Parts: sequence; structure tokens; C-alpha cells
Amino acid sequence: MLENIDLSQSISNEEYKNSMKTLEVKLGELQRRAWELKIPIILVFEGWHASGMGEDINRFILPLDPRGFDFHTMTRPCYEDRLKPFLLRFWERIPVKGRIGIFDRSWYSRAIIELFGNKKDEKALEKALEEITYFERQLADDGYLILKFFLHISEKEQKERFKEIKKKDIPLILDEYEGKNGKEQDFIEQYEEYLPVIEKILENTDSPNAPWEIVEANDRNFAVLKIMVTVTQAIETSIEKITKTPGLQTIKYLDIPTTNLPVLNGSTLEKTDLSKNISVEEYRESKKLYQRKLEALQYELFRKKCSVVILFEGWDAAGKGGAIHRLVEVLNPRLYSVVPVGSPNDTEKAHQYLWRFCEVTPLAGHITIFDRSWYGRVLVERVEGFSTEEEWRRAYREINEFEKILADAGTIIFKFWLQIDKETQLERFESRQNDPEKNWKITEDDWRNRNKWDDYKVAVDEMLQKTSTTGAPWIIIESRDKRYSRAKVLKTVAETLEEELKKD
Amino acid sequence: MLENIDLSQSISNEEYKNSMKTLEVKLGELQRRAWELKIPIILVFEGWHASGMGEDINRFILPLDPRGFDFHTMTRPCYEDRLKPFLLRFWERIPVKGRIGIFDRSWYSRAIIELFGNKKDEKALEKALEEITYFERQLADDGYLILKFFLHISEKEQKERFKEIKKKDIPLILDEYEGKNGKEQDFIEQYEEYLPVIEKILENTDSPNAPWEIVEANDRNFAVLKIMVTVTQAIETSIEKITKTPGLQTIKYLDIPTTNLPVLNGSTLEKTDLSKNISVEEYRESKKLYQRKLEALQYELFRKKCSVVILFEGWDAAGKGGAIHRLVEVLNPRLYSVVPVGSPNDTEKAHQYLWRFCEVTPLAGHITIFDRSWYGRVLVERVEGFSTEEEWRRAYREINEFEKILADAGTIIFKFWLQIDKETQLERFESRQNDPEKNWKITEDDWRNRNKWDDYKVAVDEMLQKTSTTGAPWIIIESRDKRYSRAKVLKTVAETLEEELKKD
Repeated sequence: MLENIDLSQSISNEEYKNSMKTLEVKLGELQRRAWELKIPIILVFEGWHASGMGEDINRFILPLDPRGFDFHTMTRPCYEDRLKPFLLRFWERIPVKGRIGIFDRSWYSRAIIELFGNKKDEKALEKALEEITYFERQLADDGYLILKFFLHISEKEQKERFKEIKKKDIPLILDEYEGKNGKEQDFIEQYEEYLPVIEKILENTDSPNAPWEIVEANDRNFAVLKIMVTVTQAIETSIEKITKTPGLQTIKYLDIPTTNLPVLNGSTLEKTDLSKNISVEEYRESKKLYQRKLEALQYELFRKKCSVVILFEGWDAAGKGGAIHRLVEVLNPRLYSVVPVGSPNDTEKAHQYLWRFCEVTPLAGHITIFDRSWYGRVLVERVEGFSTEEEWRRAYREINEFEKILADAGTIIFKFWLQIDKETQLERFESRQNDPEKNWKITEDDWRNRNKWDDYKVAVDEMLQKTSTTGAPWIIIESRDKRYSRAKVLKTVAETLEEELKKD
Repeated sequence: MLENIDLSQSISNEEYKNSMKTLEVKLGELQRRAWELKIPIILVFEGWHASGMGEDINRFILPLDPRGFDFHTMTRPCYEDRLKPFLLRFWERIPVKGRIGIFDRSWYSRAIIELFGNKKDEKALEKALEEITYFERQLADDGYLILKFFLHISEKEQKERFKEIKKKDIPLILDEYEGKNGKEQDFIEQYEEYLPVIEKILENTDSPNAPWEIVEANDRNFAVLKIMVTVTQAIETSIEKITKTPGLQTIKYLDIPTTNLPVLNGSTLEKTDLSKNISVEEYRESKKLYQRKLEALQYELFRKKCSVVILFEGWDAAGKGGAIHRLVEVLNPRLYSVVPVGSPNDTEKAHQYLWRFCEVTPLAGHITIFDRSWYGRVLVERVEGFSTEEEWRRAYREINEFEKILADAGTIIFKFWLQIDKETQLERFESRQNDPEKNWKITEDDWRNRNKWDDYKVAVDEMLQKTSTTGAPWIIIESRDKRYSRAKVLKTVAETLEEELKKD
């Protein structure tokens, strides 16, 4: 994409000033309009070192209202970032709907530095690019406007600029952040070597959802104007699309097949044998055995920096809380956390829906237990109509992609569905209601959900089929007998972890 | 505080189980009640290594509803934490009102490790303890219930436990986090040496707002029960105080003098000479000169890891935006950020009011410009009645303490008050209203604030007097002439920074 770029273009100071005057006012107006329409905007700036990114970005942000954008200089990961899958720290920084997120360097140069690195690891880079396309497509599908700029200068121009920078004694800020530990390789002063790598990245990740715009950056005036024009035009187009399409609230760049596929294998739930049970003695023995195993395994996971996600879904009163309690009873609180997932708060609603899970995924060596999870999208949100059909249908793929990102980074994932029948639920609801120590647990919502049992059943069966993947299969836990249920969870986790840890 | 502790106490398993049964239910109830009453609770756990903190805390948190607490293991600071004043990363983690924040290790052991450290820097430790007392008192004044536990075992017991841990091959989790780089010294296996240090800390920071409870931890049952009893009793007492005192919404541990002190020196605002002005030529020259200086100075600040806060307060339409624009026009966006401060959102309201500023204070080497600031507490919140008289009166001291924490960590602080008269404001309001490109800037709020000019004037004068400190003085900017105003800001910042940087 870079070979045919004409770097000789330039614009006079006078022409620049005149054009900027109009564009600045327009950009300010569009920013306010996008805020009203809640259009989230992501602007990525990449480019050669010394291509003038700092100054160009500053000229671009000066006319913006600082209340409406976030500026992120993406440098080396902090300690905690390093203990998480690569993409998550970028995902965490996506803007709230209506705001502009400006990325000065991004997942692109970080992938080159952190993953491709000194070892020139082509495979790691390719995997990262695949995951980046998931990420950008998911955001675009959710209505994010994404524009990516690459500031291009010639090698000759770069050399001259390096000289000038040296003369002026300006520190290389990004370089300072790298900590000069020599562990990470940046593409400073290695133009020839990195040109083909960058070409490849630009080509593989240029999509209608998230296009690259090459900015000829030899001439500053030309570069800034091109950025200004591109951004204003793109925002204008987005606004037009939204305001002129009745009913459209966000722009969809992708067509998702919305045919209602029949559940081909019949109901997984109906095939579950709920008569399974164990005696008190068997339960006690099992509990003791597997809890002891887990106590030792947690330290091995920690040593091997292996992270674990254990998520629980199931009918109300199926026994999620009790199963979680037995699981963590002998664990070290420094190594696990329980994340209860309820309805999203306002900030969470104002982001793409997987955003709120990025922060709570486990660090390497840690165990995170989710009491309900991202599957709310295809369960409660589907049944209650909190998301549109297009949104929850799309979520199957999005969830599979999200779990793949976790699994690829070495996370062991357990997904438990706790199954009971409708009668058992009623018994448990009534017994809770009559127990003064437990009746706070029963709310109107529980009874309302119970009335929609059949709708939920369809949703659960479809979820179990569409999101049971090799890296993250669903495990049905027969939970009419609480002891059986708890023992099966303990056994499954302990034995699987034991096996997985033997593999390395 | 540790010498007279009787470590021989113990409780049988049966007695433990019986007591725990009642206490667990009670703790659960109290947690729900505290949530309803929005009482924020902070529990700090410190103690000797191998005192059993991990297991004790786990037993304590099992009966809690995971939706209502946050667990923080405080280990080494991440890269960004190191670039900020010591206390801020703890401040950032205080719980939302109604939740329980559990700190496994805290500002105490981190102060020993990071500040006292290998150099045995008594002075740094003392300064930290002073700042910790500000921090805890401010939280307590805001209604936070703070309990601090020190898990105490004898040296003999510790030695035996170390042997057992080694035998079982359990990794020292906190030690892993330290990165084994040998830079930081923890108090593992140095009981004798650290005993007097810990004694001193416990004595100096034990206060009615935030008491220390020594937990005899030789016997696990005894330790857990003592923690359970202390916490339940303290929450119960807080709930009683709140529900039985009519009108009391939070508990105040401290009496704040609320006598309305007269402004002794007359009005600072009235003494301001608003006739000051400069010509277009003078302005252009000044701007060019000082912007050029600033361009160079930002890199020197970055190199010396010196951070800068520049905050702007002033009447509506006094020219804050314009002054900020000229200040950042030639700066590198990687080294500065502009933080516009509006009314707090729901999450911000649910914390102590300084909390939201912790995250946006500058990293070492960076410049943060605040367009309005924490002074909203004693201006708009006072005048509009958004905070009680007791709250805004208390804020003078709290703000001074907060700025002292920043200044002590080496932050250079500028506080500008942009002064205009009422007639100038009217002219500017009207000219904005008539300009189609600018009329979005004028809102109902602006006219409403204008009507309260006299109330604001009293508030501003009192603020200028009570919060002008040696480390962070107020600077009045005469702003009837916009050119004069902008030039004075540029000159003040450039010249002060130049001087400050010469000092090192």
C-alpha cells in the first residue's frame, strides 16, 4: 500500500490557514453532533518515527472540545497488562459511545514490538492480526466509527529529521517508556527492514469497517489537512446514515444472517439425567479429596502463570452460589476472585458489551469465577428484549471470538450450566421464601423469570449448541441433587486442571 | 502496642463452629444493611509474614455477598503508579459508598517497603505516615468506616510456620510479585529488625477514626473470630449512629469549627486592577517568546521526571479556554493533557469527592491542565448548596492537604484565578449569543450563575485566602483584556518552570 504514494505533495501556509479555519469550525460542530447521536469514534495514528505524529495530532485536537475525547499514548504494557491477553488493554480503552478515542500508537505497533519483536515471530504476528480483525469488526458492528492513519515519510526524509531532532536535543518520548531494557525492539532507524512488515499489516487489516488512510507526511500542512478532511467527512457520512435511516440507531457495516436456525440435535437440556445423586458420605469424601487437590493446584497454576476462568450459568436457585462457595472454600484469596455479573451500569451500557469483562478477566496465574457472565447477552438480554435480535445473534460469534482470545493466551476455561427442572425450582423458591435468613434472596425478578421458563429454555439450548467450542466447551451439571452438583463441579475442575498442568 | 499481647489464647473447634454460625448470618445481614444505608467500609489487613492472613481473610469473606465487596492485594506499584505520589494508587481504590473494600496489605506495608526500604529512610516514612493520617481522616470525615487489623504472631511461631510452608512447597505469593529484583526490601524473616518499626507505625497511626486492632494470630480460630466480632460490632455501631440520629447521613468523627470567619484582608478580587492591557504587538511577541520557551521546557520536565499541575478557575467567559489553548498550542500531546471538570457522575458522587482527581493527576514528567478543578467543592457546591456547610468548610483543609501530597512528591502547581468584572461578562455573553458559531457555549446555567455573582464573590475571596499556600499559591490573572490575560499566563508558567528546573 505504500509503494505508490506520492510524497511530494505540499500545501502553502496561506492555503493551509484558510482551509483550516473552515474545517476547525466544522469539526467542532460534528463532534457535538456525534455526541448527541452517541456515535463512538476511534482514531488510530501510526506511522514512521519522526513522521511528525505528535505535532500533527496536536494540531488536529486543538479545535476539539476536550470534554469529548480521550487521548491514549500506547506504550509498553504495565505489569498487570503483561499478565493478560495482548488485546485486552486496548479493549479496555475504547471510548464511551459519543466520545472520540484517539490512539497515538495502537495495537498495531504494540503487536510489532511485543509479539513480532526481536525474534521476528511471524506466527505470533499473524495470530495477533487475526484477533485484531475480530476486535475491530466487533466494534464496527456495534456502531463504532474507526479510522486508522499511517503517517508515511520516505527513508531519506526520516534520516534528515532524525538529524534535526538530535540537534534540537528532543528526547524520544516513546523510547523512554520502553525502559531501554533492550528487551523490546522498536522500528526506529530500521526503515528498510520494517517496510515489508508494515506493508503486510496495512494490507491485511484494511477493511471497510476500519479502513487505513495513508497520510503523506513529508509536508506537515498537507498531512494535517488530509487528516482533518478525512475525519470530518467520515463523521458527516456516519451522521447522515443514522439520521436518514428510520429506526437505525447504530451503523452496521456487516450483514449478519438472521435466519432462525432450528436447533438440530433436539434439546440438550431435556436429555439431561436429573436423577443423578450421591450420598452424604460420598459427598464428604469427594469434597475433601478435590478441595485438597485444588488447594495444591492453585499454587502450581500460579507458578506456571496459567490463568483460569470458571463461569457459572444456570436457572435461578440451581445452586450456583453453593457450588462457588465449595470451590473457593480452601483457596487463597490472593489467587482467586468471584465476579458476580448483574445488569450493566450506565458506563457499561455506553460501551460495546464485552468491554466490562476485559478488566475482570484473570491475570496469569489467577482464577476468576463468574457468577453469571457474558452469556447474559444471549439469555436474559434475548428473552427480555434488552438487545435486538441482530445483536444477540451476532453475539454467538463475538463470544466465541472473545473466548478464543482468552484460550489462545493460555487461559483454561470452564463453562458450567447448572440444570434443574421447574418443580425443583419451585420447591427451592418456596423454601427460601419461608426462611427468614434467606428470603432476601428471592425477588420479584425471580418469579418473573420463572414465568418465562420456556423462552429461556430455547435460548439456553441454542447457546449450548452455538458456543460449545473445542477451546471452551459447555459442561452440563445435573443439579437436582445439590451434593451431586457440587461434587461434580469440584471433580471436573480439579481433574481437568491436573491434566492440563501435566501437559506442559 | 505489641509487647503486652497475650498470644496464648485459643478457641476449640466446636466453640469456633458454634460462634461462627451465628456471626456469619449476622455479618451477611449487616452487609446488606450497610449497603442500603450507603456506609462505605474499609478493612485493612496487615501482619507478619506467615501469620495466616490469606486463610483468615478467606474465612472472613466467605459469608459475605461477593456483589458487595472488593478485594485488593496491594503489591508492588505498576509502572504508572511509580510516576505518581505514593498515596494515590490507594486512594483510587477506596470503595464506592455502601461497599466493603478489603485491603490485603495496604499503604502501611507498602510505605515500609517502598519508602523506608533498604535505606532505612526514617524521614520518608514519617512523611508518609503524616500523609496517611490526612488520607484516613478525610475518608472518616466523609463517613467511611475504617478498621485496621494487625495479625500478630511470635517470632518463634513464625519460624515454625516458615518451616511448614517450605515443607509444603507453597510459593510466597507477595514475594513473587516483588519481582525478585532485590530492589525492594520486605520484612520477611527479619522479625527482630522490623518489630520496632511496626510498633512505631501502629502507635502513630492508631486513631479513633481509623483504629488498629491487634489480632492474636497464633491460634487461627481465635484470630478469625476476633476479626468477625470486631467487624460486626463496628458495622452495627455505625448503623445505629446513623439511624438513631435524625438528619445524620454520614458519621462525622471530627468536629470542624464552623464559625463563619470574616474575610480579614478585605476582598482580594476587588483589589484586582482590571485596567491592565497590552497592545497586539506586545502580545504577539510575548506569545512567541514564551511558547517557544515552553516547547523546550516540556522536554526538560520530561527528562527530569518533574510533573506539573496548572489549574484554571474563574468567572464564566473569563477566558479560561482561550488561555489554555495558547498554553498547549505548541506542546507535545504525549506530554500534556487537558482535563475539563464538570459536575460529578454517579460513580464519582459515590466516592469521597477528591477520589476522581486521583486518576487524572499527572504522571512524573507530564503536565495536566485542569479547566475547573477540585475547587468546585468550595465554589459551585457551596453556592448551589450541593454540599453541606460542614462539608465545604472542611474542604479548605482537605484541599490543602491534597495539594501538599502532590507538592511533596515534586509536583509544580499553578492555580490561576481569571478575574473579570460583571459588565465584561455581560458583553461577552451577549457577543457569544449573537455568534452562530459560538452560541452553543452559552447555556441557562451561565445566566443562573451570573445572577448569583455576589454569592460567588464571597466564596471566591474566602477560597483565595484559605487555600493560598506556600507550595501552591493562587495567582490572580487580570482578564478584562484577553491579550494581557493570555500573555500573563504564558509568562508565569514559562518563567516559573524555568526557575524551578534550575533549582535541581
